[in-house]
Amino acid sequence: MKIALAQINPTIADFNGNLRKIEDFTTRARSLGAHLVVFPEQALSGYPALDLWEDPSFVRENALAVKKLAEKNREIGIIIGFSSENKARFGKPIHNSAAFLHQGKIKALKHKTLLPTYDVFDEARYFEPAKSNPPFKFKGKNIGLSICEDAWFDEKNGSRKLYQTDPVALQAQSFADLLINISASPFIRGKNIHRRKIMSAHAKKNKLPFFYCNMTGGNDEIVFDGRSCVFDRQGRLVKEARAFIEDLILVDLDNLPSAILAEEISEIAEIKSALITGIRDYLSKCKISKVFVGLSGGIDSAVVCALAVESLGKERVTGVSMPSSYSSKGSIIDAQALAKNLGIRFLKIPISPLHSAYQESLKSFLSGNPADASEQNIQARIRGNILMALANREGGMVLTTGNKSELSVGYCTLYGDMSGGLAPLADVPKETVYELAHEINKNADIIPKSSIEKAPSAELKPNQKDEDDLPPYPALDPILKAHIEKKLGVDAISKQGFSRSVVKDVLRRIELAEYKRRQAPPSIKISPKAFGVGRRMPIARGSYLDDAP
Amino acid sequence: MKIALAQINPTIADFNGNLRKIEDFTTRARSLGAHLVVFPEQALSGYPALDLWEDPSFVRENALAVKKLAEKNREIGIIIGFSSENKARFGKPIHNSAAFLHQGKIKALKHKTLLPTYDVFDEARYFEPAKSNPPFKFKGKNIGLSICEDAWFDEKNGSRKLYQTDPVALQAQSFADLLINISASPFIRGKNIHRRKIMSAHAKKNKLPFFYCNMTGGNDEIVFDGRSCVFDRQGRLVKEARAFIEDLILVDLDNLPSAILAEEISEIAEIKSALITGIRDYLSKCKISKVFVGLSGGIDSAVVCALAVESLGKERVTGVSMPSSYSSKGSIIDAQALAKNLGIRFLKIPISPLHSAYQESLKSFLSGNPADASEQNIQARIRGNILMALANREGGMVLTTGNKSELSVGYCTLYGDMSGGLAPLADVPKETVYELAHEINKNADIIPKSSIEKAPSAELKPNQKDEDDLPPYPALDPILKAHIEKKLGVDAISKQGFSRSVVKDVLRRIELAEYKRRQAPPSIKISPKAFGVGRRMPIARGSYLDDAP
Repeated sequence: MKIALAQINPTIADFNGNLRKIEDFTTRARSLGAHLVVFPEQALSGYPALDLWEDPSFVRENALAVKKLAEKNREIGIIIGFSSENKARFGKPIHNSAAFLHQGKIKALKHKTLLPTYDVFDEARYFEPAKSNPPFKFKGKNIGLSICEDAWFDEKNGSRKLYQTDPVALQAQSFADLLINISASPFIRGKNIHRRKIMSAHAKKNKLPFFYCNMTGGNDEIVFDGRSCVFDRQGRLVKEARAFIEDLILVDLDNLPSAILAEEISEIAEIKSALITGIRDYLSKCKISKVFVGLSGGIDSAVVCALAVESLGKERVTGVSMPSSYSSKGSIIDAQALAKNLGIRFLKIPISPLHSAYQESLKSFLSGNPADASEQNIQARIRGNILMALANREGGMVLTTGNKSELSVGYCTLYGDMSGGLAPLADVPKETVYELAHEINKNADIIPKSSIEKAPSAELKPNQKDEDDLPPYPALDPILKAHIEKKLGVDAISKQGFSRSVVKDVLRRIELAEYKRRQAPPSIKISPKAFGVGRRMPIARGSYLDDAP
Repeated sequence: MKIALAQINPTIADFNGNLRKIEDFTTRARSLGAHLVVFPEQALSGYPALDLWEDPSFVRENALAVKKLAEKNREIGIIIGFSSENKARFGKPIHNSAAFLHQGKIKALKHKTLLPTYDVFDEARYFEPAKSNPPFKFKGKNIGLSICEDAWFDEKNGSRKLYQTDPVALQAQSFADLLINISASPFIRGKNIHRRKIMSAHAKKNKLPFFYCNMTGGNDEIVFDGRSCVFDRQGRLVKEARAFIEDLILVDLDNLPSAILAEEISEIAEIKSALITGIRDYLSKCKISKVFVGLSGGIDSAVVCALAVESLGKERVTGVSMPSSYSSKGSIIDAQALAKNLGIRFLKIPISPLHSAYQESLKSFLSGNPADASEQNIQARIRGNILMALANREGGMVLTTGNKSELSVGYCTLYGDMSGGLAPLADVPKETVYELAHEINKNADIIPKSSIEKAPSAELKPNQKDEDDLPPYPALDPILKAHIEKKLGVDAISKQGFSRSVVKDVLRRIELAEYKRRQAPPSIKISPKAFGVGRRMPIARGSYLDDAP
């Protein structure tokens, strides 16, 4: 039996478009001689559909699409993820399911057993879990078909396992001849190596070939990195699809290829690909063709602009320099040089006349002291307004340029530099922004050296430097990571060699900036814990930082 | 046995403050002769603590607080909600628990069985459910102690029940002498009548007295309305605590009072109280003392301003009129009259000079046509900037004034009229805003009649009226409710007597405005489905409105 894995990039709720794509891949698989073509989890509707899963019209359309797919492709076997009705009298109205289609019908219907309900996942909100999921038969083979989290039973949360049952092992014990897992497994930096090990372990432990079909492409904050793959019964990788792009791979079950080396790319190259995928798909799935980026001459805006050009092409990116009296001459030159290197449209709109107009209109209320936060915010907001006016006028979107370090401690202005439809660096710490800049400059000096080398500054008051207001980034970033990703408290972080008072100050800033993050645009998740849908924090709250021993 | 129900308003994560409050209520209960004092679900940490429940420091502090409470109050029995460690090797690390404290120790520890995971609730994200929850003994009585959702087993989701077990009935079958439920049950318009029926039914069905202790106060989007109550074994209400305020009620189990009539207030009065509670607690729990409200002369801003004054007092509210050349003379007069009626500080800052400055700075990019959206947005953004500058300067917060009808269809400007820390009307449809205005004016003409009577207008272009851009509110509001609250599609809504093309247009607008709502400030939930944490929608997506039959 020849099995094809169709690693597709569906658009959430675009049933007609997704169905066309699925039929196209099915046709290609057939022409390659496949007897079975496998699509990812929720391939018909995209993942995550969130509260659309609670919409009866959505569920009906999704079921209708499966029916159409089955009727139109009778010869080849198709495995596809969708949402199916829960026929029991209790529980959530739908299952997260995989259908096996053949001869015009749903020949087998399997549900997901383990429902991830943490971080960005809310599956217990929507789905009723399977009670059991034994193999089904096709062409004389028993196929154990599991869905994403079903293959992650072994994962630990601290010293504890989340789940008590191992659906994949149960299928092997039920005499499966091969194992297939369909997934929508999001990208996180470095995760792929771990994921490959897990899937390989299933093959090896159960002495069965293991087929893993993952989704690819970006959906709001989440990027799927694809990398669908096949393991032989010794757990050796024999085939792997490409990363961050649609792909179709074919393997003959009765004549598996010999082992190959996994393709490895550096973590920073991988992050760059994820961000480019996230930007590209957010724009295309929102049906927006151009972006505007405020260019300060600094490294963050340079990196965002370069990523935007790689995602969308230079014709669709406009860089806007909006200098003030606090902008250094170098900043303006660097912004212009970047735009030239990238070959993009470049606009220069000085903000001093607008800044003066606000000072005049508000003179009885402002302090007149440029160090005052309200005076600094006005400048950032003028820039936000200009970018939004340009985007509104031309039907484009603004990309914000802030990084995760700033957003963590609230070193950013709501309705100012936080104005925009997507925040590509909001999950990228400042130290990683530097790495990205070097990665972007690997083959040519796209980002001016001076943008990379000069001390970071918001340039909202005279001679301002980030380090006057924040701990230096080489200290700040590890503290942020320890608290946000690893959930460590003041004690544990101090023990890593940071001053207790600095740690406490940083953690307090994180608490206080929650109201800003609540109104931030979506970011692109590259870390185990990104701000956004996967991190839910109260705003009105007390602090227990001082209670800790 | 005398039992006190302590209906408190904790602040999330303020363990010291909450503990002081709990000890104060415990002392009061003792002085009234209580043998047992009952506090709400998660009384020590506040509800919902969201991802703080995943923070080991938070969980440790919460456990420490229970220990301190037990040690300091040895004579009286205390029932209190907190998070306790899951000691099993599998599952989520904590339970949503109730401790029975006596003689310095935790004498009984009970966990929640039914974990709500829908709308604003994410309990399966954090908590491991109880496997069983039999009664415990105190003073010769078997007490069946359940937590919030445990008492809602009978609720239906369409034709389906969510849960298969009825924890309260199981306690009655295990020879409970009385039933106690501790809750953090959010306010929704009209819900209290239904809730009272459910609790009464438990008492009647099981022929046992039923004690219901609910939380009160606001936490971000959620307001708890209190109304703790006691039913006799015939299901008759015998005692009820006040709504939207802390309260302590005492009942002698061996000599229950005779039946009373439940206190009923009108739905609009109840909504008004919820909004006032929500504003008051958001400000106090964020430790912010003053608010700024942009006064357009229209009904929305007038209602927000009047609610703010009732919440905070007139000294802490500033109304700001920011007229443009499109503002009618009446609008300015109405804004001023409202401020005078409320006795608040009133500022007038015309935006024309700033508007001209933007037009000058952007003249090569804007159309010069005031009907163009980018030109309208600039005006809204200037106003947002002015309000934010005032709030930043004085350490206050801006209240936005938009209503749910506008936010649903995106008839609002990001970083413009959407700028602010809290959106009091974002779950209040326009038609209900009118009712609120009449409720506010019940005893005196606070809101000028002309603000209520004139046709709604954004006043961002000459002679603009909402009805030129949107269906009239008496049609729009029921369509929105049918889709957002009842999840009906084009077909079902059209059958209620609305034109199919209008319905489709409205639903499409709702889809397209998702990106704006993602960046909206928190609202105050008064409906079964508010925007915010309880409604999660993808932004980048396709539409299936045209696929529907």
